[in-house]
Amino acid sequence: MTALQQKTTPQNKQAYLLRNEEGECYIINKQVIKILADAASTGNLFSLVQITGSKGEASPLHVHDQQHESIYVIDGLLELTINNEIHTLASGDYAHLPAGTVHQYKTLRNRTRFYSFSTDGSMADMYRNIAEPYAYTVPHSEAADSITAAALHDLDHDYRIVTDPPQGLIAAKQITAAELPDAAVPYVVESGAGESMLAADQLFTFLATQATTDKKYLAVMTEGYAGEAVPVHHHEKHTECFLCLEGKMTMWADGEEFHLEKGDFLHVPAHIEHSFRLDVHHTKFIGFLASGLFEKFFRLLGEPYEHSELPKTPGAFSFQRVLENIHELDLKLS
Amino acid sequence: MTALQQKTTPQNKQAYLLRNEEGECYIINKQVIKILADAASTGNLFSLVQITGSKGEASPLHVHDQQHESIYVIDGLLELTINNEIHTLASGDYAHLPAGTVHQYKTLRNRTRFYSFSTDGSMADMYRNIAEPYAYTVPHSEAADSITAAALHDLDHDYRIVTDPPQGLIAAKQITAAELPDAAVPYVVESGAGESMLAADQLFTFLATQATTDKKYLAVMTEGYAGEAVPVHHHEKHTECFLCLEGKMTMWADGEEFHLEKGDFLHVPAHIEHSFRLDVHHTKFIGFLASGLFEKFFRLLGEPYEHSELPKTPGAFSFQRVLENIHELDLKLS
Repeated sequence: MTALQQKTTPQNKQAYLLRNEEGECYIINKQVIKILADAASTGNLFSLVQITGSKGEASPLHVHDQQHESIYVIDGLLELTINNEIHTLASGDYAHLPAGTVHQYKTLRNRTRFYSFSTDGSMADMYRNIAEPYAYTVPHSEAADSITAAALHDLDHDYRIVTDPPQGLIAAKQITAAELPDAAVPYVVESGAGESMLAADQLFTFLATQATTDKKYLAVMTEGYAGEAVPVHHHEKHTECFLCLEGKMTMWADGEEFHLEKGDFLHVPAHIEHSFRLDVHHTKFIGFLASGLFEKFFRLLGEPYEHSELPKTPGAFSFQRVLENIHELDLKLS
Repeated sequence: MTALQQKTTPQNKQAYLLRNEEGECYIINKQVIKILADAASTGNLFSLVQITGSKGEASPLHVHDQQHESIYVIDGLLELTINNEIHTLASGDYAHLPAGTVHQYKTLRNRTRFYSFSTDGSMADMYRNIAEPYAYTVPHSEAADSITAAALHDLDHDYRIVTDPPQGLIAAKQITAAELPDAAVPYVVESGAGESMLAADQLFTFLATQATTDKKYLAVMTEGYAGEAVPVHHHEKHTECFLCLEGKMTMWADGEEFHLEKGDFLHVPAHIEHSFRLDVHHTKFIGFLASGLFEKFFRLLGEPYEHSELPKTPGAFSFQRVLENIHELDLKLS
């Protein structure tokens, strides 16, 4: 166990590593909420929670008036009602829910699991306020109804129950190719779709951009072949986090080295030197970067790419173009 | 790397470990077939392959006249036509296709991944015969149509293309509770369903039994809390294999110790001493046991259990009942 490794999110903004099997958990009916990042640990930038539900669990229909939310499905099947339309998300699918989107989820399979990222960090505290602490990341069979929709009505959080959704809400766009909307509207990205940049043997896929998040964050999927480490660097303004989804990667942060696998999470706030290396082919991680000012880096480093899978031979790698524009980028090489 | 660890399936029946990132791979259109077990490595007992397909890949409609097949979905979404009916399988879902079942699969998402287990071991050789060797476990973007259905017509394998399915085929039963059919008929088991036995803090769920496989094999899902190792033992007649799906487990086989994670596979033929320990809560592995004569062990050790999730407190653990009947079980304690 390294110094960065924690059992729960720390009380102040700092670099930390949270392993897949660790984390502060809460139970709501037959869903377990595991908190990976919160207001305190991110300096009010974002919350990140993992929700694992038995079949048939649902949230009430609700809206966040201020928070943007990103949902990424890991396992099972999730029915998501977004502004009066139903979408079904399988593992690898993503849903983008900007502030004001009326939404509701329902788990269609046992052990449906997804990540929910949301801006400002207060979502984690909402779960702490309404739910009971729990010792496991998966619900047990005796778990019973513990929260009613009525109880959620009086929440002093950015979580407003909607009983009568207005007509004329914007329908979520279904993204199945290499494109994203250019505004903060709801959309759903099918596994492997989204706007992609290829840089050498790594593929960066935007699931959320500055345009779709009102400049609050980026959601970027990185997939690549096993290779060399990226140069050690840090950022002066933005926070990055790395959530490993598949394969194995080595990371360095604040002078420590460790190995990430599926479900392991690393939080890297501004000023912390870090690097990563993919250790097996087709390692994948999703990164949430807040604010989203680092978007230009990915666009400079790679070339637009229209496929869902990595190419057989590496693409262009325009690190010189990054260096030429480094004064515009929040990137400090060590 | 241990002595048991292999890069591909061995040429003779023996104990071996194949890591998630290793394996002999073949490409068919935009699907990669990874061979985990074959006729040579199992003594003609079974094949086990992992298929990873980009969205829209499909097999032709076909039937195996002799082989029984089990499909378990790991990621994405798989459309399975079974005897003229369409079923959609998400991660955690299982399909049982006895010999004579007319079936066809289609991937509905990029990076849809599933395991296919089949009796007699010759399926792996069929893939070797029709497909090109491939260096990765995931297709690359340039992969193109390489196999036509016409080419599959002349196969000298138990793989018969069906162009005009007969009427009156038995529809696959949809299993959503703690029950299975009592005969070798097609069925689909939703994630978390299937006939379950609880033994202390481990849950054994039958996805295939002696009755549903004509006594050829069992498919058993094991899930448990982190705990102690099971006693070292071996079997005189049947082969077991362990395919880790989630979490971390330590295994011992033939005097070696190693750690299994998602996608790691251990083959344990008769006479090989072995044991396992679950190292984190909710570790899951699927075991295929051929023949299926070990079924009674699970029924003696545990009690029938109707839930999909582990209980908060352990259930009965009837090891004494196992010992009292050990003369009927293919179980030798060391």
